[in-house]
Amino acid sequence: MLNNKITELLHIQYPIIQAPMAGGVTTTKLVAEVSNSGGLGSIGAGYMTPIQMREQIREIKQLTSNFFGINLFVPKEFDVTQDRIKSANQILQPIREQLGLHYKDNLEIPEFNNVLETFNEQIKTLIEEKVPVCSFTFGIPSSEVMSELKQHNIILMGTATTVREAIENEKAGMDIVVVQGSEAGGHRGSFISDDQESLIGLMSLIPQVVDNVSIPVVAAGGIMDGRGLMASICLGAKGVQMGTAFLTCTESGANEIHKEEILHAHEDQTVLTRSFSGKWARGINNKFISETQQSESTLPDFPVQNTLTKGIRKTSSSQENRDFMSLWSGQSPRLAEKQTVNLLIKKIITEAKNINKSN
Amino acid sequence: MLNNKITELLHIQYPIIQAPMAGGVTTTKLVAEVSNSGGLGSIGAGYMTPIQMREQIREIKQLTSNFFGINLFVPKEFDVTQDRIKSANQILQPIREQLGLHYKDNLEIPEFNNVLETFNEQIKTLIEEKVPVCSFTFGIPSSEVMSELKQHNIILMGTATTVREAIENEKAGMDIVVVQGSEAGGHRGSFISDDQESLIGLMSLIPQVVDNVSIPVVAAGGIMDGRGLMASICLGAKGVQMGTAFLTCTESGANEIHKEEILHAHEDQTVLTRSFSGKWARGINNKFISETQQSESTLPDFPVQNTLTKGIRKTSSSQENRDFMSLWSGQSPRLAEKQTVNLLIKKIITEAKNINKSN
Repeated sequence: MLNNKITELLHIQYPIIQAPMAGGVTTTKLVAEVSNSGGLGSIGAGYMTPIQMREQIREIKQLTSNFFGINLFVPKEFDVTQDRIKSANQILQPIREQLGLHYKDNLEIPEFNNVLETFNEQIKTLIEEKVPVCSFTFGIPSSEVMSELKQHNIILMGTATTVREAIENEKAGMDIVVVQGSEAGGHRGSFISDDQESLIGLMSLIPQVVDNVSIPVVAAGGIMDGRGLMASICLGAKGVQMGTAFLTCTESGANEIHKEEILHAHEDQTVLTRSFSGKWARGINNKFISETQQSESTLPDFPVQNTLTKGIRKTSSSQENRDFMSLWSGQSPRLAEKQTVNLLIKKIITEAKNINKSN
Repeated sequence: MLNNKITELLHIQYPIIQAPMAGGVTTTKLVAEVSNSGGLGSIGAGYMTPIQMREQIREIKQLTSNFFGINLFVPKEFDVTQDRIKSANQILQPIREQLGLHYKDNLEIPEFNNVLETFNEQIKTLIEEKVPVCSFTFGIPSSEVMSELKQHNIILMGTATTVREAIENEKAGMDIVVVQGSEAGGHRGSFISDDQESLIGLMSLIPQVVDNVSIPVVAAGGIMDGRGLMASICLGAKGVQMGTAFLTCTESGANEIHKEEILHAHEDQTVLTRSFSGKWARGINNKFISETQQSESTLPDFPVQNTLTKGIRKTSSSQENRDFMSLWSGQSPRLAEKQTVNLLIKKIITEAKNINKSN
């Protein structure tokens, strides 16, 4: 039951994908170790320059000869108004002051054309570097990009939060669709559906998607162990993608404070916020989230808001100040452990096999 | 794997509990047919007078000799202010007019003492009628009530939406705890945790509760078939409680419009609202929900708001007007079917056994 179309397509031993977490979590060590332990490691390249991407890909290739993946954010048009930026800065200014940060007027506000250009260069780079698997978040690339990647035999994975989004992924030619349940930590991958309406729990989402697409489905959101893997397979998924479980691993590049916060959090301490980036994301509640909550809907779109909070996130992280960091986490922090990637994967597989035997 | 502590405690063949839906859905026929088909039928007695309760219990006993359950709402202190009632009526008045309804000034606004008195009489009635199983929503009864029920060997089931609530249920002496995931339709059962924070998907909620209590756990929310049953068991639950799946059955007393709406709905069409009753509940989005959404937080508490909307719910239902009905549904409406209870249960068990074989 653990060998199926997913393990075949991705050339992996176990149907376990390490979620491509952006922002420095997916170190070369983490990605390579997942692939060396029988799963699929993935680079969270959403915020990387093509140069950084190339460097990391080459380093990983030194550490593993197995398949690994890379994840990109699909650019989407966004509004930039000086009014919104101004009002966001008014909210962020007191926080910056608490951290001893000065707002730079020369902050480079992203423009859509540049974002799109970077994306196209990222695509070029991963083709040149022959990355075997590419996954996408926040949308589906153009048909031109899709066919170019297909010509190079790159396995393509899309992200969906609803049945409709999953169908669109299949139509566009994705080989695999990752369905993200409401339990998931970090950014919501929804790109067609409304944010509130696309918060579907995996118990509902997996079977309804499976009934409506023919490509293999991978489940993501709150899955931490062999129980979650086996449950996902019962619901019709062919594999799982896990973020938080890998984030607290010793090989992950997440800030130690972030790891500790997850290791001590309860299932009811995460909330959804768009204050960090302009896109909805799930993380452990803290001062930053609660202080900005009231103004959330007035904040600029992604990636503008993300740029405005960059200094806050960076400084609070280096000051080890949990109050203003983005403490992304899924809804299962009680199941998180500090351990090596290899041990985590071994435990998942042993547990999955035991559940199978006892049923 | 389908025989365990739950089937033993509840004297049932399969670990399937029909959720106790209030408001006329759980007809004697539905409840008895679930129990006759190997599951546990349950009366949703939350809104019933002790006399109505007694009648239904006696009727069910005519139709089945198997175990069945009854569910009560645990009363909680609530505020009644004339200001809130007035402002709620301002919002409800245009809706009443659309339905040709006149607001009666002599509407009987509930008082806590009366609600508590009714609850105590309900308890007395179910003891007298020797109902074998009693479950609770919205809280835990006093220790006096708990021990009285225990003295009469009634099996007690509590509802929890977080680990903390599950622990409280165990401490209070419940024999079983039903964990309600964010996927669930109808009223949220949370009683300690904040409403937004207690929206935990079952993939996260089940294993975290199972790790923290020793009483058997039953999973509720979005479960519709053998896939959901097997997934819940993999996650550590001993059984499932299903509402929406039974609501569309031929034996259910739900309005035909309500059944049709579920049978045609998608997973992303349900929303949370407190406009119908003053407590958060999940249902299919309609005009009533969207028109009252903005004022939601200012509406009176349960059960005051429930009383204020009674005429609207009743009239829209009899006029077959879906716009103003409470169309409760979980997040898996695509999996709903119109069929008999017996066929539904047979299909669940066959599917569960097949999944087990193929894994």
